[in-house]
Amino acid sequence: MSTAISPLAPTHVPDLPSIEGVKLATAEAGIKYANRTDVLLALFDPGTTVAGVFTKSKCPSAPVDWCRAKLKRGQARALVVNSGNANAFTGKTGRAATEHTAKLAAAAAACKTDDVFLASTGVIGEPLPAEKFAGVMDRLVAGAKGDYWLASAKAIMTTDTFPKVATATAKLGKATVTINGIAKGAGMIAPDMATMLAFVFTDAPLSAAALQGLLRAGVADTFNAVTVDGDTSTSDTLLAFATGAAAAKGAPKITRAGDPRLKAFAKAFHTVLASLSEQIARDGEGARKLVEVIVEGAASNASARKIARAIANSPLVKTAIAGEDANWGRVVMAVGKAGEPADRDKLAIWFGGIRVAHKGARDPAYDEAKVSEIMKKPEIALKVALGMGKGRDRMLTCDLTKEYVAINGDYRS
Amino acid sequence: MSTAISPLAPTHVPDLPSIEGVKLATAEAGIKYANRTDVLLALFDPGTTVAGVFTKSKCPSAPVDWCRAKLKRGQARALVVNSGNANAFTGKTGRAATEHTAKLAAAAAACKTDDVFLASTGVIGEPLPAEKFAGVMDRLVAGAKGDYWLASAKAIMTTDTFPKVATATAKLGKATVTINGIAKGAGMIAPDMATMLAFVFTDAPLSAAALQGLLRAGVADTFNAVTVDGDTSTSDTLLAFATGAAAAKGAPKITRAGDPRLKAFAKAFHTVLASLSEQIARDGEGARKLVEVIVEGAASNASARKIARAIANSPLVKTAIAGEDANWGRVVMAVGKAGEPADRDKLAIWFGGIRVAHKGARDPAYDEAKVSEIMKKPEIALKVALGMGKGRDRMLTCDLTKEYVAINGDYRS
Repeated sequence: MSTAISPLAPTHVPDLPSIEGVKLATAEAGIKYANRTDVLLALFDPGTTVAGVFTKSKCPSAPVDWCRAKLKRGQARALVVNSGNANAFTGKTGRAATEHTAKLAAAAAACKTDDVFLASTGVIGEPLPAEKFAGVMDRLVAGAKGDYWLASAKAIMTTDTFPKVATATAKLGKATVTINGIAKGAGMIAPDMATMLAFVFTDAPLSAAALQGLLRAGVADTFNAVTVDGDTSTSDTLLAFATGAAAAKGAPKITRAGDPRLKAFAKAFHTVLASLSEQIARDGEGARKLVEVIVEGAASNASARKIARAIANSPLVKTAIAGEDANWGRVVMAVGKAGEPADRDKLAIWFGGIRVAHKGARDPAYDEAKVSEIMKKPEIALKVALGMGKGRDRMLTCDLTKEYVAINGDYRS
Repeated sequence: MSTAISPLAPTHVPDLPSIEGVKLATAEAGIKYANRTDVLLALFDPGTTVAGVFTKSKCPSAPVDWCRAKLKRGQARALVVNSGNANAFTGKTGRAATEHTAKLAAAAAACKTDDVFLASTGVIGEPLPAEKFAGVMDRLVAGAKGDYWLASAKAIMTTDTFPKVATATAKLGKATVTINGIAKGAGMIAPDMATMLAFVFTDAPLSAAALQGLLRAGVADTFNAVTVDGDTSTSDTLLAFATGAAAAKGAPKITRAGDPRLKAFAKAFHTVLASLSEQIARDGEGARKLVEVIVEGAASNASARKIARAIANSPLVKTAIAGEDANWGRVVMAVGKAGEPADRDKLAIWFGGIRVAHKGARDPAYDEAKVSEIMKKPEIALKVALGMGKGRDRMLTCDLTKEYVAINGDYRS
């Protein structure tokens, strides 16, 4: 298990302001880890709305099932996140553990069980000892406070090498509203499974439907455009909470994601999602290079996404980048295997702005020495132009290194 | 580039008999390698039929395009295979190189250019210096002989650590016919792309249509059921040639793959395809474990294949196996991400015959020590039962080791 901070970690960590209507607390429940916080409680004022998107896995974790069911009500009063145990593939015991956790939180927070949202990350297939939350829930509620974001991001880490936070503000009507986000991933709880969890909080007065609309639109080119190894967790969860406290400052109540007054907010919201998801790529297991895959000229945007995904998930492309090799032959291979409309004789490929292949062959002007310089950098843009249409896409990934294999190939402890 | 022979290499190499109507020769054309053979010529007697299946890549190599076009005629007199250069992504120059190679072979073999089949494997994006074949083609024709199979398999190797050959005989009518096969892959020409090439030869009198039918049916659970890294080459080629010489020994002429007289032949043919494709998995780059993925109880066979493929291509499953870790959590993850009908609460998972997960949870009877013993073996069976229907599938893969990253992450030389 790697403990050194990723060389791609952001150099600046923003200071996240309080958000009215949100209080946070962390504790050491001793789920799996010793001497570190492993449970986060977020408390929301009455009237807080909630939206969420989840893993597409057909074998989701018990907390994912729980959140999907509760989301229909659109209201939230508490969020409990634990690290150390994913409560996935735990059958009836797992469902009972979610119920028990939610009841404990509801009793401590004096709210309905149905208003408690849950997320778990860590080892799978082991029963979650939810009774351990009993001892800490009252203390969490008593100690919850507004300016506790970085500590909250740390409590949900597994093999993350740095906590992930982002913040933005936007005008909504005449009021300034705040959006904070925390995330974890794409680390791996030794030795189980990469899980992406992200939580976004705002004081803007948005209905659950409006929030859900923003979230769905926002993930397409952020969280859904990041891949480390193409493997999908049973537990991926992104939840957004809107307390509505800014209504007191004059922010208008918004009921639809398409409301034109949301324009600046939607942009800021997207910035937070983009920052959090990029930080996940930057903390990819064993990653030494952040890779931006850009596909242009595809038959459609959907086709461009499939091609970008084939490139970003190709072990051959990713090992080449780890080796600082501008191996466009492997990019051609990945384009070809995507199964989307492509014509070898129209294909062009760039590494870091230098065109290396053009019209079905090596670019005659291609200077290997210059490209080698680019490949040594920690951030590399890989662009493919297909010449088939106007479809575009962009995905973020990282290289595939021996450290990835070492992190994931160690014996289960 | 790894040079040690794979620990999974077959311990017994069969001696391949001559096949009437087939002569073989190899030479050092100096395409890329020094001091090793890099071109294979196979000559076929008049009347030889041919069938083929190719990469599904949308960016196939020039020789793949050539073979697809010529295959319609159903006749073959010569096969030229070179290693060292894949003639892929080489545009018009590449098409000209295939034409030039075929003309040189046709002139030497005194046959039509259209009766020459071609395959290339090696570096991509570099023009194939087909003029180098001019000096060797006449010598190849002059020296061609029947019992030269192992040397032929060696001439088409790239980063393969051992030559791949297989043979079988079958009764066709009252005659005994022979089927020989050679293959290369899933090595990588440093540093370009994994290419699978395989060629099967028989003296059975089969029409091109019958041969094509057998080939299509035969690849589904052999070549198409093997994956090393999920990456698809631009050049994958499987060609089968039937000289028909056994007709003189009384073998009946067969025009349809469905002919009941073909039953024994079809079985033997399948044995050869299965052996060659398994040898490719055994020579997977950096492989230390051969993994048989068995999926049962899926909604359909097609669904079982998708799930088997998701497991066999999952970097997390493959690194766990490299680490000798019976990490069934990652298998659940892979089942979930396949997107096929699955129910967590019905899922069961076995490693080497020991059930580790059952009905949505860890199997209570699961003995970690016994499973650890199994994980130390070089060949591991991983079975998943879904409980959804009667769909079954089986795929072969190998583990993902640091050596894979080393082999593929080295600088391009």
